[in-house]
Amino acid sequence: MDILKKKIGIVGGGQLGKMMILEAKRLGFYVAVLDPAADCPSQSICDKLIVSPLDDPSGYIELSKHTDVITYEWELINADALENLEKEGQTVYPSVRSLRKIQNKYIQNSEMQSNNIPVPRFALVSTTEEIREYGKSTNFGYPLMLKTTTGGYDGKGVAPIKTEADIESAFNELGSGVKELMVEEFVGFQKEISVIASRGITGEMVVYPVAENTHTNTILDTTVVPADISDEISNKAAEIANRVMSVFEGVGTFCTEMFLTADGNIFVNEVAPRPHNSGHYTIEGCFANQFENHIRAIVGLPFGDTSLISPTVMVNLIGQSDGTARLLGLEESYKDPNVHVHVYGKSESKTGRKMGHFTVTGNTADDAVKRADKLKQVLRFIGE
Amino acid sequence: MDILKKKIGIVGGGQLGKMMILEAKRLGFYVAVLDPAADCPSQSICDKLIVSPLDDPSGYIELSKHTDVITYEWELINADALENLEKEGQTVYPSVRSLRKIQNKYIQNSEMQSNNIPVPRFALVSTTEEIREYGKSTNFGYPLMLKTTTGGYDGKGVAPIKTEADIESAFNELGSGVKELMVEEFVGFQKEISVIASRGITGEMVVYPVAENTHTNTILDTTVVPADISDEISNKAAEIANRVMSVFEGVGTFCTEMFLTADGNIFVNEVAPRPHNSGHYTIEGCFANQFENHIRAIVGLPFGDTSLISPTVMVNLIGQSDGTARLLGLEESYKDPNVHVHVYGKSESKTGRKMGHFTVTGNTADDAVKRADKLKQVLRFIGE
Repeated sequence: MDILKKKIGIVGGGQLGKMMILEAKRLGFYVAVLDPAADCPSQSICDKLIVSPLDDPSGYIELSKHTDVITYEWELINADALENLEKEGQTVYPSVRSLRKIQNKYIQNSEMQSNNIPVPRFALVSTTEEIREYGKSTNFGYPLMLKTTTGGYDGKGVAPIKTEADIESAFNELGSGVKELMVEEFVGFQKEISVIASRGITGEMVVYPVAENTHTNTILDTTVVPADISDEISNKAAEIANRVMSVFEGVGTFCTEMFLTADGNIFVNEVAPRPHNSGHYTIEGCFANQFENHIRAIVGLPFGDTSLISPTVMVNLIGQSDGTARLLGLEESYKDPNVHVHVYGKSESKTGRKMGHFTVTGNTADDAVKRADKLKQVLRFIGE
Repeated sequence: MDILKKKIGIVGGGQLGKMMILEAKRLGFYVAVLDPAADCPSQSICDKLIVSPLDDPSGYIELSKHTDVITYEWELINADALENLEKEGQTVYPSVRSLRKIQNKYIQNSEMQSNNIPVPRFALVSTTEEIREYGKSTNFGYPLMLKTTTGGYDGKGVAPIKTEADIESAFNELGSGVKELMVEEFVGFQKEISVIASRGITGEMVVYPVAENTHTNTILDTTVVPADISDEISNKAAEIANRVMSVFEGVGTFCTEMFLTADGNIFVNEVAPRPHNSGHYTIEGCFANQFENHIRAIVGLPFGDTSLISPTVMVNLIGQSDGTARLLGLEESYKDPNVHVHVYGKSESKTGRKMGHFTVTGNTADDAVKRADKLKQVLRFIGE
């Protein structure tokens, strides 16, 4: 089949879906989107929008009717629905097999552990007694992290347990054992880093430069590239991301989030089977961005150059209040000619909601960081 | 008014309109498009498509209802219709005043001449006798170019007159004097160059690097940036483009096409009041591309950095035969990771029709040219 005639379906029409479409449209691809919201960020630029909840199989069936290859911008979706379509011959990239291994955090960690990819120690727990046991054990010890094995993101589905006294409340916060739970060793990290990588249908792979991330209130705040780490650590991180792609048989763009400890050890914190917020810097920062290479992967095209054009800082624009969305400071920020603002097109601002992001490129990371820091006071999404 | 809430209207939904929209959507702008074809390249990514002929005022009135600022991807449009809307308070950028000065090639040249911008010698003619006179004159001499003052593009509306014997046929070819005609001195150029520049509502300006162009059958074939010219010539060309923007009071991105003679003289061949084919290289080649700066200009935002990331070659993908469009060689071409292909989304290929383009970036222009030349044999748009 002529590659350009392949119709692409995307589960999820948020900002990640939107940025995939912007790249797909450069090559003239037809794109259909499945999203619960008629006014999702992708709505105006897709060829067909199917409005249906992401847990309802009927939306997936409808999407399949319009597409040759289905991908997704988000992993908390209906894997059963996708699997049924896959069985009937629908191409899904990344495969449902990959998706399932990643959707469940316990399986995700187990897969990595059994393939010698370093992860924090972890174990399934179903009662407060079991948690208490791990807290007392020399392997784990406090603080430790209690997590739901499925459904978590941006700090949701995670409750830190600093001392034995927190066990009860953390357990209750995460559903009192109704949802499957696991404990994870708390890694006292020095830096949070992430590596975006893309892998093709036949296993070929490209890896992006290592990004250094800062979170605020468990949501990504700032990404700086290149990360301020040694070449040795950088190579190690790239090598881990590379192995992650193989272990999960990823087709498309994935993100591997990692903890770097003071003594130079790396532990994988989480894998996302899709383009990732910490890879948004690639739009201005790299010759071919994470979304372009995602599209190339799923349709079977060779990859574009992932190398860095210039040091780049990405800052998330998070809603600071509720109401009709309004971005302050755009004109002011554009006085710096190397600032690019991305507005996702969500009409409502909510406190903590990802409304957009901006990037600053510079001759050095330090210079870009300084200019980005100033703009954090200027560019603000509010509700009015 | 909140800049991001400005609704943008574009007259023309071809590839230039499409590439404008792709940039406008990064900032979440609403975009309405007026085009005669329901399946125009912009159709799937605009918020509203008004299907109406570009000479019919009713389409413009409808477009105006949906937009705060109207721009255009093409100059051969209904200036009267736009002027009526402008009089009623509709913002139009570039202004109708600018458009009118450029739409008529005789007025365009006259404006430049009276502002000391170098243009070839030219004169209005209405009979074959008058043409014969100019052919004989020491000022003009043969060969000379016969042109319609309006409606020309891509070599259409131009007939070269090599000797007196060609006068009759050239005159008949261009409508036997029914359309307004002019003669223009033939400039024996060494190179064709062009400069893209953007100018804001309050007159601020940015200029892109000089591009060197090669035409085949009067249609742009290849653009190489940087042009292989001295710094002195480059500065002179940029300065001319700068003055062109001021003379025509351009708001938005314009292109100034120029002839460079062997003795280092520059003559302006033509001005386009819009992003231009010879500026497509800016998408991969520059930090902020010509379409992004066009959008920034018309909504009143400061400009992005126009400097070159790396030497870039742009090659047009012209339909080589008629029928359902099919691009050959995409996979093969993407084995080079610094190739980007743009497919406009026209379902029908026609011989000579602009179907897409590709860019090659490299460490040197020579390297990029060599790689691009190889791909000219590989990437081909055919009809089947």
